[in-house]
Amino acid sequence: MANIRDVASRAGVSVSSVSNVLNGRTDQMRQETLVRIENAMLELNYHPNRAAQQLKTGHAKMIGLLVPSIVNPSFAALAREVDLAAKNNHGYRVLLGNTYREEDEEQAFLTDLMSHGVRGVIVVSSSIEKSHFSEAAENGLVMVNYDGSSVTDAESNQILYDSVSMDNRQAGRIAAQYLIDQGCREIAFVTETTRTISRCHKIEGFLALAAEKGMKTHARVIEGKATKAYGDTEMVELGNQLAATISELPLKPDGIVAINDVLAIGLIAGLRSKGIRVPEDISIVGIDNISLSGLITPALTSVAPPLADMATIMVERLISRLNSPHINAEEFLFTPTLVVRDSVIKRPG
Amino acid sequence: MANIRDVASRAGVSVSSVSNVLNGRTDQMRQETLVRIENAMLELNYHPNRAAQQLKTGHAKMIGLLVPSIVNPSFAALAREVDLAAKNNHGYRVLLGNTYREEDEEQAFLTDLMSHGVRGVIVVSSSIEKSHFSEAAENGLVMVNYDGSSVTDAESNQILYDSVSMDNRQAGRIAAQYLIDQGCREIAFVTETTRTISRCHKIEGFLALAAEKGMKTHARVIEGKATKAYGDTEMVELGNQLAATISELPLKPDGIVAINDVLAIGLIAGLRSKGIRVPEDISIVGIDNISLSGLITPALTSVAPPLADMATIMVERLISRLNSPHINAEEFLFTPTLVVRDSVIKRPG
Repeated sequence: MANIRDVASRAGVSVSSVSNVLNGRTDQMRQETLVRIENAMLELNYHPNRAAQQLKTGHAKMIGLLVPSIVNPSFAALAREVDLAAKNNHGYRVLLGNTYREEDEEQAFLTDLMSHGVRGVIVVSSSIEKSHFSEAAENGLVMVNYDGSSVTDAESNQILYDSVSMDNRQAGRIAAQYLIDQGCREIAFVTETTRTISRCHKIEGFLALAAEKGMKTHARVIEGKATKAYGDTEMVELGNQLAATISELPLKPDGIVAINDVLAIGLIAGLRSKGIRVPEDISIVGIDNISLSGLITPALTSVAPPLADMATIMVERLISRLNSPHINAEEFLFTPTLVVRDSVIKRPG
Repeated sequence: MANIRDVASRAGVSVSSVSNVLNGRTDQMRQETLVRIENAMLELNYHPNRAAQQLKTGHAKMIGLLVPSIVNPSFAALAREVDLAAKNNHGYRVLLGNTYREEDEEQAFLTDLMSHGVRGVIVVSSSIEKSHFSEAAENGLVMVNYDGSSVTDAESNQILYDSVSMDNRQAGRIAAQYLIDQGCREIAFVTETTRTISRCHKIEGFLALAAEKGMKTHARVIEGKATKAYGDTEMVELGNQLAATISELPLKPDGIVAINDVLAIGLIAGLRSKGIRVPEDISIVGIDNISLSGLITPALTSVAPPLADMATIMVERLISRLNSPHINAEEFLFTPTLVVRDSVIKRPG
């Protein structure tokens, strides 16, 4: 592979002239010399070694993406949007880490990012308030938390990391509103038991909207414990299991909001096996709008986060705060929209 | 962040002593000094800067993963297994590139890998024989081709890149054999029209097995053109569309092998909307065994590649060939297995 000396020799100039071009110091250079150096780079297929550049700037044109598992369709969709925003808007690439919601794995990934000269990371984790994140921040890693809580420094009362989320209360409200508008009179929010901030907000929004519509006593939360904390299929299994619970309720809901689409898919399959039809007997709305949701039968009506916009902001904030560490962290809330498909039926008022 | 001088000062030794520890030159060092330096590193939370190390070795402890789109569940599953094998077996991290089967995007990703000091990449592309890959190889990038053809140098007749695939002929055979064993008497292979090497092999295997079982005139290929070359939903749409074609055939198949699970999912939905039941009227076997296949109704019987084993070999070969460039490229074929679920029914002989 060509190096800076090969380029200098090809262009008939000194190594320091080539170095000047690489570092943008071309204002004192004759146009003809600049063109000769640029042509030599092209002819030799010369790529400036970013490892060397990085030694000076202290960081690589990469950002990290920490997710529980890329096999979860929500995080795969997030990864694609982050990759697009990083590459197209900033020329950055994405270093991926699957951490299975395990603190050891998160810690190891943060350490490796630092070692590789990566100084910014988008984090999907419910442990962002724990010490392995604050230590990484103290060591200079800039973080954006996706769909999590914001973390405030106890002394300064300053927000520590940017956080970018769908407005989860709004998501719960939109889903409840749609079920009620379509004539449901007994609604339920179905969820995994563990209460993350984003789950709490969805439930709050759902219950608040029901209360405003005079349906406080006809809106409830049905929950169950998943067998594992992360993964790809345990939410489907939980959906299946909760469908069995629902099928035995004396007063069944006629409309359900599921905490996410994967749980909704498990619910639909579980209800079907108990002879309960979706949407004829029970309407279902999911949250997340994964690509799969349009493909199942019935196609799932779902509340969608504006993922491309969220990815754009996350990457932009990371890179801004890398370049200007004095910028304060902020919270960004994005309004979701409802994607109407076939899992909700209009009932006679 | 602490640097090598901070560590030296904390440990009360020279910078070159710390450097000796970092480079494993500790055989001449007193045990007590070594312990003091290691403790200083721990206390200062010092991470040797890999950008600096990389300048010496010429490569970073990262491998690239080039996929059409991480949103495709097959590639998300691949990404997770590659990440696990790279990290757990070798301490490497994965730089991800989505390239949408576009040559410009592939080229840009290969160039960025080189610039970031990444010297090995796992490639999922049907263009591996094109010049942007051979140029990257000439510039020192080591490649493993996943599930593609092997590329041979015209002059030396040497294989240029490692290739790691499921035995696709065997996949076609296993699927056909199972349908016939379950009593199907009129079978079809349903596929997208574009003939990649791996698709051709699956079809060959399917037809060969049918011929061996005396069913040559009862085995056919049904195909259609997808609207886009990559993506997440176009295979489902194609499945829907081909289901309509199949519903109008005078002689319908009673067993179908779909070229991949996503197409199978589209077929099932399309057939259902035409009043044709799976598996009661038509049994279906998919190929790929994506995680979603166990979650739909009916759960899809599918031919599964041993993805974890394949990822292990791919990463191992990349790193071996990075360290020993004289190792010749090879082809690796992995035997698939059938995962039996609910989309095939036993028919009376």
